Amino acid sequence: MVSKLEAAMEGLIKVFHTYSSKEGDKYKLSKAELKSLLQGELSDFLAASKDPMVVEKIMSDLDENRDGEVDFQEFVVLVAALTVACNEFFVESMKN
Amino acid sequence: MVSKLEAAMEGLIKVFHTYSSKEGDKYKLSKAELKSLLQGELSDFLAASKDPMVVEKIMSDLDENRDGEVDFQEFVVLVAALTVACNEFFVESMKN
Repeated sequence: MVSKLEAAMEGLIKVFHTYSSKEGDKYKLSKAELKSLLQGELSDFLAASKDPMVVEKIMSDLDENRDGEVDFQEFVVLVAALTVACNEFFVESMKN
Repeated sequence: MVSKLEAAMEGLIKVFHTYSSKEGDKYKLSKAELKSLLQGELSDFLAASKDPMVVEKIMSDLDENRDGEVDFQEFVVLVAALTVACNEFFVESMKN
């Protein structure tokens, strides 16, 4: 029996590999794969940003080792930051 | 319609608050709450560690601001590290 936390962790891994396996290195996101992931999985977040360069900026921020691809560790940094922001929003709305 | 990635992020937030709301600060994990979370959600991980001090060590590692409690951001660091380790295991098993 998988716990809720294990299910969430498994979900992160599955989502990453669904997109990273499409082209090139199967275990890294190219810029096109990252864009596809953001559009498919975080469309509300993308729509909320009016910046047409948002995908390029996220890619540049995440790609710490400057190889033009985002590996799983770099992806987790994005998800962690977004989840912390969501949690802060949730906590504030609970307090008010 | 919630995407798989959004569901995973929501799962992390829900799990944290399920345990953090039990006593004291509703938005932070006390040591007892952290122990309860690890036992309830990551029992296989806990069982794999033979170290009787593992909960104390995790608490000490996570509690960056030394207030004796683990906030959501500190918790996400643990989950991120565990998920990266799980992914590496998964990728290695796929390659072999």
